[in-house]
Amino acid sequence: MSGSPSVLGGRHGRIDGAEQVTGAARFADDLSLPRMLHARIVRSPHAHARLVRIDSSKALSLPGVHAVITGRDLPTPYGIIPWTTDEHVFAVERARYVGDAVAAVAAIDEATAARAVAAIEVEYEVLPALLDPEEAARRTDVQIHASKRPGNLTKQVDLAFGDVDAAFAEAPLLLENDYAFHGTTHAAIEPHCALAQVDGDGLLTVWSATQVPHYLHRALASVLGLPARRIRVIQPPVGGGFGGKSEPFDLELASALLALRTGRPVKILYTREEVFLAHRGRHPTRIHARTAFDRDGHLVAHDADLLLDGGAYASFGLVTTYYAGQLTSLPYRLPAYRYRSRRVYTNKPACGPKRGHGAVQPRFAMEVQLDRAAVHLGIDPIELRRKNFIGENTRTVNELRVGSLGLLACLDAVERASGWKERRGRLPRGRGLGVAASAYISGTNYPIYPNEMPQSAVQLCADRSGRVRVFAGTSDIGQGSSTMLATIVAAELGVELADIRVVAADTDLTPVDLGAYSSRITLMAGHAAMDAAREVASMVRRAVAKKWEASPKDVSLAGGLAIDICDPSRTMPLADAFVLAESAFGTLGAVGSYNTPKEGIHGDYRGGTIGATPAFSATAHVAEVTVDEETGDVVVEKIWCAHDCGKALSPLLVEGQIEGSCYMGFGEALMEHHETDAAGRLVAPDLLDYRIPTSLDTPFIASTIVEAPDENGPYGAKEAGEGPLHSSIPAIANAVFDAVGVRIDELPITPEKVLAALDKQREEQHRR
Amino acid sequence: MSGSPSVLGGRHGRIDGAEQVTGAARFADDLSLPRMLHARIVRSPHAHARLVRIDSSKALSLPGVHAVITGRDLPTPYGIIPWTTDEHVFAVERARYVGDAVAAVAAIDEATAARAVAAIEVEYEVLPALLDPEEAARRTDVQIHASKRPGNLTKQVDLAFGDVDAAFAEAPLLLENDYAFHGTTHAAIEPHCALAQVDGDGLLTVWSATQVPHYLHRALASVLGLPARRIRVIQPPVGGGFGGKSEPFDLELASALLALRTGRPVKILYTREEVFLAHRGRHPTRIHARTAFDRDGHLVAHDADLLLDGGAYASFGLVTTYYAGQLTSLPYRLPAYRYRSRRVYTNKPACGPKRGHGAVQPRFAMEVQLDRAAVHLGIDPIELRRKNFIGENTRTVNELRVGSLGLLACLDAVERASGWKERRGRLPRGRGLGVAASAYISGTNYPIYPNEMPQSAVQLCADRSGRVRVFAGTSDIGQGSSTMLATIVAAELGVELADIRVVAADTDLTPVDLGAYSSRITLMAGHAAMDAAREVASMVRRAVAKKWEASPKDVSLAGGLAIDICDPSRTMPLADAFVLAESAFGTLGAVGSYNTPKEGIHGDYRGGTIGATPAFSATAHVAEVTVDEETGDVVVEKIWCAHDCGKALSPLLVEGQIEGSCYMGFGEALMEHHETDAAGRLVAPDLLDYRIPTSLDTPFIASTIVEAPDENGPYGAKEAGEGPLHSSIPAIANAVFDAVGVRIDELPITPEKVLAALDKQREEQHRR
Repeated sequence: MSGSPSVLGGRHGRIDGAEQVTGAARFADDLSLPRMLHARIVRSPHAHARLVRIDSSKALSLPGVHAVITGRDLPTPYGIIPWTTDEHVFAVERARYVGDAVAAVAAIDEATAARAVAAIEVEYEVLPALLDPEEAARRTDVQIHASKRPGNLTKQVDLAFGDVDAAFAEAPLLLENDYAFHGTTHAAIEPHCALAQVDGDGLLTVWSATQVPHYLHRALASVLGLPARRIRVIQPPVGGGFGGKSEPFDLELASALLALRTGRPVKILYTREEVFLAHRGRHPTRIHARTAFDRDGHLVAHDADLLLDGGAYASFGLVTTYYAGQLTSLPYRLPAYRYRSRRVYTNKPACGPKRGHGAVQPRFAMEVQLDRAAVHLGIDPIELRRKNFIGENTRTVNELRVGSLGLLACLDAVERASGWKERRGRLPRGRGLGVAASAYISGTNYPIYPNEMPQSAVQLCADRSGRVRVFAGTSDIGQGSSTMLATIVAAELGVELADIRVVAADTDLTPVDLGAYSSRITLMAGHAAMDAAREVASMVRRAVAKKWEASPKDVSLAGGLAIDICDPSRTMPLADAFVLAESAFGTLGAVGSYNTPKEGIHGDYRGGTIGATPAFSATAHVAEVTVDEETGDVVVEKIWCAHDCGKALSPLLVEGQIEGSCYMGFGEALMEHHETDAAGRLVAPDLLDYRIPTSLDTPFIASTIVEAPDENGPYGAKEAGEGPLHSSIPAIANAVFDAVGVRIDELPITPEKVLAALDKQREEQHRR
Repeated sequence: MSGSPSVLGGRHGRIDGAEQVTGAARFADDLSLPRMLHARIVRSPHAHARLVRIDSSKALSLPGVHAVITGRDLPTPYGIIPWTTDEHVFAVERARYVGDAVAAVAAIDEATAARAVAAIEVEYEVLPALLDPEEAARRTDVQIHASKRPGNLTKQVDLAFGDVDAAFAEAPLLLENDYAFHGTTHAAIEPHCALAQVDGDGLLTVWSATQVPHYLHRALASVLGLPARRIRVIQPPVGGGFGGKSEPFDLELASALLALRTGRPVKILYTREEVFLAHRGRHPTRIHARTAFDRDGHLVAHDADLLLDGGAYASFGLVTTYYAGQLTSLPYRLPAYRYRSRRVYTNKPACGPKRGHGAVQPRFAMEVQLDRAAVHLGIDPIELRRKNFIGENTRTVNELRVGSLGLLACLDAVERASGWKERRGRLPRGRGLGVAASAYISGTNYPIYPNEMPQSAVQLCADRSGRVRVFAGTSDIGQGSSTMLATIVAAELGVELADIRVVAADTDLTPVDLGAYSSRITLMAGHAAMDAAREVASMVRRAVAKKWEASPKDVSLAGGLAIDICDPSRTMPLADAFVLAESAFGTLGAVGSYNTPKEGIHGDYRGGTIGATPAFSATAHVAEVTVDEETGDVVVEKIWCAHDCGKALSPLLVEGQIEGSCYMGFGEALMEHHETDAAGRLVAPDLLDYRIPTSLDTPFIASTIVEAPDENGPYGAKEAGEGPLHSSIPAIANAVFDAVGVRIDELPITPEKVLAALDKQREEQHRR
């Protein structure tokens, strides 16, 4: 039985839509508890400094101040990746960036806490700060983390696949260029916020705007020295994550310790400036790319040297370093590939995962290289990509297993939608079309800490009233994961979406799910939900079949009814069918869980290759731009994006993800820059100065869903949340070239850079 | 594997103990929601009156008044028993007792609501009121419920088993006496309280101090005309129920409708007077008892005529009427038994179930009859009861299936503990010892609405951190049902109690359990918990056994460890064992559910016999009293109670139940009287005037747990919450006789009645 087609793939909205748009949803900062204190964090004004002395006495003597905690209180280091636990809640020996946390104060209100923060005296011994990654990689006299090998490296990966040098030696076309991707940040609407409470039994509950309740649960246990079972993490509705809330943060651990110390609930809400400091955004990355092609435009080799500016802490950097190299090969056939990927510490806010983690920067370089090759060889850039498509059910040279990959359909779709064939090359100067393509993972085969347990699980129970309750550890951060789970359960059990209650992301109520990162939930938790729902559906069908003297396989559950397939006029309300099944089998509960298939795992997280995922999505973008040659202004007129998500379980949500990704890519291409000044201070620590597109800035986005079902996805489904971002940036860059003939290889594409490039173009034309 | 003996039967406290004693527990009235309104109910000042007109205009014009609702708004009748749905939220056509609800007002605060209540004008046409049950049964001209057959009968049961008349004709000893049990009420500390809210999706949530969330859920759906799936019922911690919160009440339905009407949360908290009006307490019962004995003191026949004063509505009365007749035979062998049990409507607050439902009044009569026989025949009253004990694994003449029944051990225990053999008959006049015995059901084989679904279910999930979450629909009303479930899960899985989270009584989160009534939870939900936990334990043991290369049967789970039985030095922390099992089998979830065994069901709820239960508990009491012949004061010096609960899963909780039952029986024997005056008004509508014992009044209670395990109980467990009440009352009455030679056959045993009886005794002695 294939479930209810009207639900699966139907254009329904989010199950929490009404709650969200009416303002009824209670985000972390909407929560308030009796006797709640507010805490604020003292932060370093220096990019690199030794802590000499902290004097909290004046702060503690202020009326309304309840507690001060410092690094001494929380000596255990932590960090999302078990091999790089280089963070402390508060600086212990030294502060490593402007904004590094030094202490926290809990007081009766935020104003008092802010006064107390100002009253805390911290004596620093200023140390030399390393702000440039090249310098940080070179210098061995200044060590940002003393325990690391000289050179401030977080991680270096050198890998080669195939005979790269031979391929380069023979290739008729070799392109060698430098690309620079400056840092960008997530800019989620909701600032980070955590609220901690200790109840009468000593149970610590932390409500946090997090993408990873399970990892936060573990970090709280480790850093606070409490057994995990004494801790409960609840994730309220989250106002956007994009990777910026996917690891433990100082405020979560600090509010917890302050609640334990004071015996009162303690809330910490980041200011917007603190959100910029917490960062973990996209790594500034310098890429030296050498790419060889044959005369027909086939890729023959690619060699990349990547330098990632990591900021002060490792964060997910170990993964980023791998991803930056490993995920470049797809969606193309690349016979020989070599990369050196290095991530270095600098005295700036730590970088981490942002939508499209690790792969967005090298994708920009690769897709511009392809565009350059197309121009050199006189081949249509879409055609060039078709030629290079790796195909399906294969492996890349760097050992990525590929299942379905609907790239050709994506290219066809954007080619057709944009009028590419008719319009490209026929537009007036100043107007151009650009194309780019990409592929991305649907979750990783590795949990963040090594274990053999399921990555996702769903426990559900069908109630005699016709409802179904679904317990899942999944984090709905606005992407609609709870709606996706409800959709699957509705499809399998035939109930309406409104009859499903999804209880998610509460470590006391829900089975473990690893979190909202790496586009893993639809594939992984979706599988778990499907399995659990099928187990219950089977009982329901058997019970109805017995009553009807029919075969269970002839009983369909759909639209709130059990239906006799052989005689569709014979139906039964589903609530009655549940009653029959509960009478026959007892209470209708089941558990489904998902672990990555062993077959799909290649290599070793700690040493060899990485990036193995159950399934890859594919994307193609065409962007149309207008370049004002007087001002250098680039206006993106329209973006066409086609994305292969395998099977769109909720097309509205998939389209939302495509549009959101295009929006974000557009912002990163033209505007965003998470930047520090010469002293390491944020240049734009607020949403007035940090430029992100408003709705008026945003171009029209035309999204097309392509479905190349994958055998590893539930109903064939793959990811949609991150993939559609990757190629949006190079498509715009390539369109700028198409419009005015200049290449801006350093993002963002600002008017200044465009003008400078046009000036240079004019000079060259003049010289010629 | 039999689990962890140190948990099962260990002297641990309640899992919510700290929360309760620190005041952290949030009862219904502790809940407050933004924009919450408060509602009050308009109540009839007449015992019987036709509603002519309700004018709400003045009330509605008061500032701060948001809504008024009346009977017209809620025309659907309801009632806990599906065959007697004779209540409306508000009187539709007439009010049937002083306090019958007529309308409700929602306003910004309670004071405004109270002013609005006073401003509502209700015009009544006063009707003749029937306050005496004999009169009500006789009169056919006044019908309290027009739809009923003439005579104001709620229900009449006439049943005979064996040849009663022949037995009476031949018996050497025939005792014929009248007994009267005046009404008593539950007097729980927490008044009834309900809070209703409608969220953005139209989901109605009702928090209520109820014993029956599932039945409330159904009543809300039926009366409000909403699908059950649009309703969520949550039972917060409850401050005592004792049967007084075991059906839907006007405040729950009214707050829900007011929340729907106003779009704001609405709370209703009963005043103490309203609690007395809501009542559903013990039925005032008149019993004409004829009992025949042979020369050795064996019962040969019993014939009882019972008249129950039901008050204005049926409540559980249909069940009460059966129970009053059916549960009298046990724990004795009664060769012939006949009864007529009638429940009549009167214009007083409706009676219903109170701890020991239905059986407490006839037990008083029967045990005093036995005491009279012992005196007549010169047989020790304990010995007389031993002689008449029915035995185990048998059936009563009225078709009750009996499994285990530890009566003899109970009698032995109280005989020994009280020094009965040494002291009885040797005490000075004015001091006496009395004995009584009883048996009671552990849940009924019938759900309240006919269905074949489980009566109880538990869904659980073991977490890799070593915790276990338990979802159960069970209502912890202070009896400790959540602790009992945790105990069972701890025993089966070897985890500590502190590692178990019980989520109970939330219709959105927990599988259906029928509620906290008829002492059903330990046996029924206990079974469900045991089954679910065993399923998970089996997975854990198999996974550990595989690692140890041992047999699963040799792996024990106890004390937070997996232990190799063959080599107890080989252990593994349970959290590690859970990880192994989760790695092997996926997420560790299971469902257990319980339905009553078909074998145990005899007869038909609507016609034949009733009272079939999976297992009977047994109890014996000895009371020692001092009677002051000057004042008539009876002081109970000590109560010894031995109760057979099959297996005490939590001995502290069982002892708490024994002590609480003895306390309550003591109060009912000497003090309590839920009484109306000639106009039908409550005589004592508050805790100042309604006499219940304080802690200083309460005698020393010595409780002994007797364990006669029953094959139908989990680990042999049977009920403990109601059984220990029954024989406490006749034991005191019999002790009064032993002390001063007078019998008070009409409860309560007040000084006035004792003095009158002593006067009569003196007159008779004088005449002799």
